[in-house]
Amino acid sequence: MIVRVINIHVKHGFDGEFIKACRENRAGSIREPGILRFDVLQDSGDSLHFVLYEVYKDESAAVEHKSTSHYKKWRDIVEPWMAKPRESTSCIPIAPAEDSAW
Amino acid sequence: MIVRVINIHVKHGFDGEFIKACRENRAGSIREPGILRFDVLQDSGDSLHFVLYEVYKDESAAVEHKSTSHYKKWRDIVEPWMAKPRESTSCIPIAPAEDSAW
Repeated sequence: MIVRVINIHVKHGFDGEFIKACRENRAGSIREPGILRFDVLQDSGDSLHFVLYEVYKDESAAVEHKSTSHYKKWRDIVEPWMAKPRESTSCIPIAPAEDSAW
Repeated sequence: MIVRVINIHVKHGFDGEFIKACRENRAGSIREPGILRFDVLQDSGDSLHFVLYEVYKDESAAVEHKSTSHYKKWRDIVEPWMAKPRESTSCIPIAPAEDSAW
């Protein structure tokens, strides 16, 4: 299992549009068989800072996600809204250990 | 609902002990009625970097967590193992919206 924690900072005025684009991307993503969670969070102290929490069954599911039309649409739409390059951390889950807990 | 994303960097040689302490803290935390998720992750590219993903029903649940014996024990044990102060980001979930999805 792979968990990607992605930090994104958008430019002033683009938070609303970014949320809309993330909701659309998530709607497609959670229908992918290899995606177990896809959480979209907004920093309580900085409305321009977002965290995506993406849980994949395995590496191939993470690769597959990047080939989907919903991901490509999201990536192309949000790219010009970013205040700086997004930071992605790829993690191994220590706990919970059971697939069913994700 | 509140999601805390916490980045922790431990000193060389303390990753194993840190994982053990986090498992113990998690075992107590997931029994708290106000905690919906408590994920412990290790960076695939840096075994000394960990991410905690803690989901609370509300602010009072987050405050309550810090008064528990398992949290206090964890905090005191891991404090000297940290390579730098931990960074905590408090977030609002955009999606999923339903409590049952957490």
